[in-house]
Amino acid sequence: MLSIKVLLYLQGHMVNYPTFLSLSIFNRSSFLYAGEAHSLKVENILYQGKSLYQEILVFESSTYGNVLVLDGIVQLTEKDECAYQEMVTHLPLCSIPSPKSVLVVGGGDGGVLREIARHASVETIDICEIDQLVIDVCKDFFPQLSVGFKDPHVRLHVGDAVDFLRNAPEGKYDAIIVDSSDPIGPAQELVEKPFFHTIARALKPGGVLCNQAESMWLHTHLIQDMLSICREIFKGAVHYAWTSVPTYPSGVIGFLLCAKEGPAVNFLSPVNPIEKLEGAMEAGREIRFYNSEVSSQLEIEDSSLIIGSRSNGQERAYTVLR
Amino acid sequence: MLSIKVLLYLQGHMVNYPTFLSLSIFNRSSFLYAGEAHSLKVENILYQGKSLYQEILVFESSTYGNVLVLDGIVQLTEKDECAYQEMVTHLPLCSIPSPKSVLVVGGGDGGVLREIARHASVETIDICEIDQLVIDVCKDFFPQLSVGFKDPHVRLHVGDAVDFLRNAPEGKYDAIIVDSSDPIGPAQELVEKPFFHTIARALKPGGVLCNQAESMWLHTHLIQDMLSICREIFKGAVHYAWTSVPTYPSGVIGFLLCAKEGPAVNFLSPVNPIEKLEGAMEAGREIRFYNSEVSSQLEIEDSSLIIGSRSNGQERAYTVLR
Repeated sequence: MLSIKVLLYLQGHMVNYPTFLSLSIFNRSSFLYAGEAHSLKVENILYQGKSLYQEILVFESSTYGNVLVLDGIVQLTEKDECAYQEMVTHLPLCSIPSPKSVLVVGGGDGGVLREIARHASVETIDICEIDQLVIDVCKDFFPQLSVGFKDPHVRLHVGDAVDFLRNAPEGKYDAIIVDSSDPIGPAQELVEKPFFHTIARALKPGGVLCNQAESMWLHTHLIQDMLSICREIFKGAVHYAWTSVPTYPSGVIGFLLCAKEGPAVNFLSPVNPIEKLEGAMEAGREIRFYNSEVSSQLEIEDSSLIIGSRSNGQERAYTVLR
Repeated sequence: MLSIKVLLYLQGHMVNYPTFLSLSIFNRSSFLYAGEAHSLKVENILYQGKSLYQEILVFESSTYGNVLVLDGIVQLTEKDECAYQEMVTHLPLCSIPSPKSVLVVGGGDGGVLREIARHASVETIDICEIDQLVIDVCKDFFPQLSVGFKDPHVRLHVGDAVDFLRNAPEGKYDAIIVDSSDPIGPAQELVEKPFFHTIARALKPGGVLCNQAESMWLHTHLIQDMLSICREIFKGAVHYAWTSVPTYPSGVIGFLLCAKEGPAVNFLSPVNPIEKLEGAMEAGREIRFYNSEVSSQLEIEDSSLIIGSRSNGQERAYTVLR
């Protein structure tokens, strides 16, 4: 009886809100956050298409601005993209002195490029994005992000990041930012050990990686695996950090921060604070979320706690990562 | 055509997931987070009832454990309650030396009482909860929270918190924790100026308030109002802090931290660190989320940025609180 009542409620809801598109259910990776859904009210569908790699959808939401969806998963919204783009960029770039050579893996929307442009020390920005259509669609519907491609230091490489990294000169980059989608489909390889080896090889000694690293509430095991792999490979400081992004599953997104053996890096105390870089706070547009205090705030040290339920649905116990 | 397609998608979803109960839509306060919904999969409805004040629902979710819902709004889940309860309690109690007298407003689930018990210095804990049925239901379905009522220092007052505070001796409390539901229905008075005046009156000089304070992504104006009211009234340090709680709207919850004029309080640097309190980390159960680093991490100083869209749906600009 109760389940029927719930069903009727849902039908009533549908009649009243016919334009609610339940996004996080209709995707191939629902295993990543089974048992819950986040829905955004759709005002207009702006684009629907399919590239060689994925389905691409852009819609105008009623409260988060334009929304980019790849294979049914929300990638970014105009309202909350600042938290992600600023954190994934400035956590690594502010932790090393005077970064010059940066690689972005993924990031076809251009938001990370926009943020890198705040660092006047940067001389070359390689970006390796697999899907040209993502770049083109974002130029049409997310001009505030794709403006990042206008920076004259940017060199776009459309192709597979694993191949690109294999062919990159050893020790080329001061920083590598992996702005990937969830680790399924085209991004699957990007959380595996061989990939982290190619990253470490391409970094200078003391160079840093910042890798999108899911939610500590939902993906405890994946994060544990990434941390232990990276501690083994990078041999410098390895941290997990997180920030609030309302439209990502569980409302947070994590970052894996790794420094390659060499000059010591302290991610908690930025040597290159954004507030002291000339013009950095206003470059392109004002900075909205990140600041140096946030940098030390949002990182969780090795010794701190991360909470997550075990993936085995039978048990309610909580795992604690240290 | 497109809206019809979306409708069919929703119907398809319903057939496949008849036990998804979309919670954040069917409540009286949907204006608080219009345009989006968070849904949890329901395994079993455990309790449904109505008190003098509100509708009470408890269900077993598939991935967040048991869930308490008041008037259609998720109040807590077994999986993520630790982040809220620990933060709302230890942010204030660790910021003052040796708290002795504490008042909890609301908090009928008992979770804040459980956390206060980690502080051996505390001699009296008054709790003023308006709804006896919430207390009784939580004793049945959330024993890990209601265990807080077993502390012999606890004195339960079932009634209206505004009346209770008016009758409290001036300068009685070292700390007051307002663990209220959203500011509509029975909790409406708890974000208004007269209420903060009664709080300030009941605090000792240098005493502290921690008040549930919504999401910086969704309730910018409410937060702005609360901050300016409290700066005027308390005259000591006033800060806004936030933490990640996946099942709250936008995945975060904020805290308004206020110190009454008197001995100076620095919320960013706890004078009473939890790690140094004998037995505090294990009292009852291990602490899961909070630690002293988090204390300095999660607070946003007056000078920092808070992001929110303007409530006027016509404009896309972002407001910045300073």
